[in-house]
Amino acid sequence: MKTSFESDYNNGAHPLVLQHLVETNNTQSQSYGFDEWSEAARQKIRTACQCPDADIFFLVGGTQANATVIDGMLQTYQGVIAVQTAHINVHESGAVEASGHKVITLPSHGGKMDGKELEAYLKGFYADPTYEHMVIPGMVYITFPTELGSIYSAKEIEEILHVCRRYELKFFIDGARLGYGLASSECDFDLAWLAGHCDVFYIGGTKVGALCGEAVVFPAGNAPQHFMNIVKRHGALLAKSRLAGVQFDALFTDDLYFHIARHAIEKATALRDIFLRAGIPLRDSPTNQQFVELTNTQKDYLMDRILFETWEPIDADHMLCRFVTSWATTDEHLSALSKALKDIPS
Amino acid sequence: MKTSFESDYNNGAHPLVLQHLVETNNTQSQSYGFDEWSEAARQKIRTACQCPDADIFFLVGGTQANATVIDGMLQTYQGVIAVQTAHINVHESGAVEASGHKVITLPSHGGKMDGKELEAYLKGFYADPTYEHMVIPGMVYITFPTELGSIYSAKEIEEILHVCRRYELKFFIDGARLGYGLASSECDFDLAWLAGHCDVFYIGGTKVGALCGEAVVFPAGNAPQHFMNIVKRHGALLAKSRLAGVQFDALFTDDLYFHIARHAIEKATALRDIFLRAGIPLRDSPTNQQFVELTNTQKDYLMDRILFETWEPIDADHMLCRFVTSWATTDEHLSALSKALKDIPS
Amino acid sequence: MKTSFESDYNNGAHPLVLQHLVETNNTQSQSYGFDEWSEAARQKIRTACQCPDADIFFLVGGTQANATVIDGMLQTYQGVIAVQTAHINVHESGAVEASGHKVITLPSHGGKMDGKELEAYLKGFYADPTYEHMVIPGMVYITFPTELGSIYSAKEIEEILHVCRRYELKFFIDGARLGYGLASSECDFDLAWLAGHCDVFYIGGTKVGALCGEAVVFPAGNAPQHFMNIVKRHGALLAKSRLAGVQFDALFTDDLYFHIARHAIEKATALRDIFLRAGIPLRDSPTNQQFVELTNTQKDYLMDRILFETWEPIDADHMLCRFVTSWATTDEHLSALSKALKDIPS
Amino acid sequence: MKTSFESDYNNGAHPLVLQHLVETNNTQSQSYGFDEWSEAARQKIRTACQCPDADIFFLVGGTQANATVIDGMLQTYQGVIAVQTAHINVHESGAVEASGHKVITLPSHGGKMDGKELEAYLKGFYADPTYEHMVIPGMVYITFPTELGSIYSAKEIEEILHVCRRYELKFFIDGARLGYGLASSECDFDLAWLAGHCDVFYIGGTKVGALCGEAVVFPAGNAPQHFMNIVKRHGALLAKSRLAGVQFDALFTDDLYFHIARHAIEKATALRDIFLRAGIPLRDSPTNQQFVELTNTQKDYLMDRILFETWEPIDADHMLCRFVTSWATTDEHLSALSKALKDIPS
Repeated sequence: MKTSFESDYNNGAHPLVLQHLVETNNTQSQSYGFDEWSEAARQKIRTACQCPDADIFFLVGGTQANATVIDGMLQTYQGVIAVQTAHINVHESGAVEASGHKVITLPSHGGKMDGKELEAYLKGFYADPTYEHMVIPGMVYITFPTELGSIYSAKEIEEILHVCRRYELKFFIDGARLGYGLASSECDFDLAWLAGHCDVFYIGGTKVGALCGEAVVFPAGNAPQHFMNIVKRHGALLAKSRLAGVQFDALFTDDLYFHIARHAIEKATALRDIFLRAGIPLRDSPTNQQFVELTNTQKDYLMDRILFETWEPIDADHMLCRFVTSWATTDEHLSALSKALKDIPS
Repeated sequence: MKTSFESDYNNGAHPLVLQHLVETNNTQSQSYGFDEWSEAARQKIRTACQCPDADIFFLVGGTQANATVIDGMLQTYQGVIAVQTAHINVHESGAVEASGHKVITLPSHGGKMDGKELEAYLKGFYADPTYEHMVIPGMVYITFPTELGSIYSAKEIEEILHVCRRYELKFFIDGARLGYGLASSECDFDLAWLAGHCDVFYIGGTKVGALCGEAVVFPAGNAPQHFMNIVKRHGALLAKSRLAGVQFDALFTDDLYFHIARHAIEKATALRDIFLRAGIPLRDSPTNQQFVELTNTQKDYLMDRILFETWEPIDADHMLCRFVTSWATTDEHLSALSKALKDIPS
Repeated sequence: MKTSFESDYNNGAHPLVLQHLVETNNTQSQSYGFDEWSEAARQKIRTACQCPDADIFFLVGGTQANATVIDGMLQTYQGVIAVQTAHINVHESGAVEASGHKVITLPSHGGKMDGKELEAYLKGFYADPTYEHMVIPGMVYITFPTELGSIYSAKEIEEILHVCRRYELKFFIDGARLGYGLASSECDFDLAWLAGHCDVFYIGGTKVGALCGEAVVFPAGNAPQHFMNIVKRHGALLAKSRLAGVQFDALFTDDLYFHIARHAIEKATALRDIFLRAGIPLRDSPTNQQFVELTNTQKDYLMDRILFETWEPIDADHMLCRFVTSWATTDEHLSALSKALKDIPS
Repeated sequence: MKTSFESDYNNGAHPLVLQHLVETNNTQSQSYGFDEWSEAARQKIRTACQCPDADIFFLVGGTQANATVIDGMLQTYQGVIAVQTAHINVHESGAVEASGHKVITLPSHGGKMDGKELEAYLKGFYADPTYEHMVIPGMVYITFPTELGSIYSAKEIEEILHVCRRYELKFFIDGARLGYGLASSECDFDLAWLAGHCDVFYIGGTKVGALCGEAVVFPAGNAPQHFMNIVKRHGALLAKSRLAGVQFDALFTDDLYFHIARHAIEKATALRDIFLRAGIPLRDSPTNQQFVELTNTQKDYLMDRILFETWEPIDADHMLCRFVTSWATTDEHLSALSKALKDIPS
């Protein structure tokens, strides 16, 4: 079987997560979020976020978390602002619109939103005398790290937050790969800082060592009224909530979540080096996703040997390709890649 | 800790399901439904259903499965017919309406729909000259077994199916607890027969030994076009689809699914006997859910000793209470119940 | 052509309404609600309601007004409580559900909701430990007069309002035929009193002398934020808002609205007498809709001579039929009815 | 009072439309689309379109028509492709998203969609292996004339239609100002040709001489099943449908609709000349909307004398402004404009 760098969800659970599922399996528990492990995980996350009053809900996946949070925090008539390349705008099959909300798009800068462009948009919006005929913006959505592996600086996030406060917008950070962003050597803030600089965010589990699960955090205890009901209405309430609770309990014990993230970044850095040594250029990314520029010939050659995803055509002759690491990436995987690159055509 | 008969989702996974998760954990795989175990599970389910062409999708939970299937099979303007007590009408926080579809209700007969009442409703509907001002019925939804533990006979299902065909309605069977219905001694058909007598149904995993997961089956390969897209739009597509695939692969190996169901029914039958011997009446139910009629005094007395759910008040002095068994119910649990009933006030 | 008692929308505009359209036609104006007649009409309605701060919006039709108001005042996850026979539950093609809201039904008592049953429902709802899995009630909807021509007493409305306040529900009165209710000799309150006993209501124009138009009134200036945007989102904002503004300006000049209503009730009372003299029973209704119990033979006989609507079968041999009067009903119409009844079979 | 060129909906009905409302007012009629004038208007439109089998529905306004048609023709999970500047994308408060459908945007070329860009988008979409995670395109929406007054050539429309056929997309033409496009001297096709080159379009009445009303035409009798129900569900079914029927009956008698359009274009052409003679540049537009480039000083100067709309800032010093003509525009209006421009600062 070929070595795969296709994604960070092509593997099982981190062994310690799995072990916790095994060791708790025979205990009876409450359901629908009231099990003991969900409660323990919530406490550990509150501590990690330094948010003792945080409301925390465990949902199953990223699209579900995005759709539920956005619908839960917006008024029916409001839209959510995101960059053109945002996951909610491209790869969620219209889940946000399914709840009646428009995704209002701004330009993407390597996956990121520019605070000044956001402000200019809002200023222009409210200066337009016909704005009551337009979709009222109610929230700003960013991903951290972005779909392209880039990360925001603290200053960039502060700028966006400042605009949100000025225009009374909720600020939501999609952290499907949060660990990889925070563990990046280029990141100039930590989890507690992030929790203090938004209205809601989620800690992605699926892509960071769990089998499934995203922890939605309302840092100030500011979950919308009846949010559990909203979760249920979105088909996102687990009967056996222990499934998510146990996994997050493991992830937030002994810093496992960040241990996993650091491991993946270490392997991603090694992977970058392997490509660079082979004379193949990559886009900047300090996280576990690496975007490699291959000629179409190189792409076909490599695809015969290694599994990875094509991301998007660069031009008629070149393809941007994505290589992703995770807790499950080993030195053997990297060796297989090195070997495959050995005689790659230039 | 008190013995719990609260639900069939207050426990972990059946040991063989868990074991399969453990033994497959280190294998890399495709995602979003294309992993090898999902494919294997689909084949095994096709065989069990005697539907070689069936389209099968694994979703996470029951409400999600219901909302996705109903929205996927209806035209925007159509509604779904269900009995008053149906799960989609009562306990899904309006997930069906969230997609714009009305739940049109008929009377419940111990949780069941009456084929003749269905026909009378439809006949009256189309005889009403104002019917274009009403919600056009597009589907019939029943649960098997019902929320009250009762089951339909083959004849009753045939009657409903016959009406559906005559009025061009889709027929959807919610099988959140399907195993317990089919394994019941009173059931006069099997899985293959059921698959041949509806347009879509699902095989509940969450409540029958899995940690999560429902297998939605379109027996004739009749999934709506782009159903995967519809699943994604509902936030119901697992990135690590192996989580559901592995579990259903285990459940449909060596008849485990029905083994679990039979075990639970055996324990439920024993539980019935324990109550009857104590002189306490129960509603008829041949499945793993037992509905017990307690005086309020008895209820309070028993609640101090055993965990169970109150279902609904019968009158000012009596409460209908639910006791549920599962793969995890043991003889020790039953003994604890017997002991607790020993000196129960009459 | 046969005389028609089919509805109160089978005619044109009241002559004074039409005249105002003609005399204002050549004046240029603002649009989207800012025209001078809309503003004048709002002032006149505020005066009539004794609500100087009322927010008032003119929408085109009843279903549109209901769907827009309900969606505008509810949170996404909330439902609206109505009786089984309510227009929003039966005859609006699921317009409320189209915005994602469930219609929660209570029994109908001659078209009316019972305040005590409402309270019992809410008490039971919040006593149910699973209520977070159910649709949270957010509003009570009643029609005045009801679909069956009946009217609430002040005491009955106070009871419902009291329950709404206690359970923090919005109270919405659908006044598609408001004039006929208020002008009824049995009504023990007036427009100003009504405006003081609900959160929002509308004054129906379409069925009371206009070509189209319903005036939605938020008596305390309590329109939801951005309600104009909500109206636009529902496709309910008239570009040439003068169309509605001019008509309501006419209707609320010199008491025309109630003049029309009294005329129709006078004719309805005469119509009742005609049926009673012919020995044909009617349901109680003090408004402009009369519900007549005909044998099927009588119904067929009369349908050959007069236009009216069948409402619903009473039994195998009898049909409930609806006869409606309006500003356009004349003594000639009544004479034609008398004549048609002359030799009706018994 | 200042002369207004603000819009083509700042006036009443064309006198012949109004006259028809007056002369039919005292006739009783059927409702909900079954009145005699709606039927007559449908026949006249069928003749004008040379589509004897066309299904035709009269709705009240443009946003309502767009939302209802798009929702009625799309599957729940599909989106509609439009240019960035399209009315449905900018000025309908999210009415399309309110029904759950994403507006997928392409670049605007003076308000127009480019057939080649459309094809490239679709080719790229289906070449993307993740397209099942994206919104499936189901329809192409264009406006004729566009929001910027430009018009498509027959060749451009054929190109788009060709792509639609190839990718199985519905093709919808929003004709809120249809008459002005067809009556333009630059238009190289007529109404019948247009009707033969799309799946659905509407003939705008509100902006072309009526008080309200848009005639939605399915040229091949291809209205979706139960479209009347869909219309009702969108709150768009007029009880007194005569209001729309009578107006369209007048508009399609003796070519009135195109007479109105030609009149407005004649006045728009004169208005262009007035600006050009004053040395003020305009954007190209062969229809009744003219887009004038004013300095901010000129804009302020002119606004003190004449009513018009600012469209959007061109740069820090210039504003694009919109001047619109209609049936109600007179030579006196044009003289007032000339006079106002006399001493305008340069």
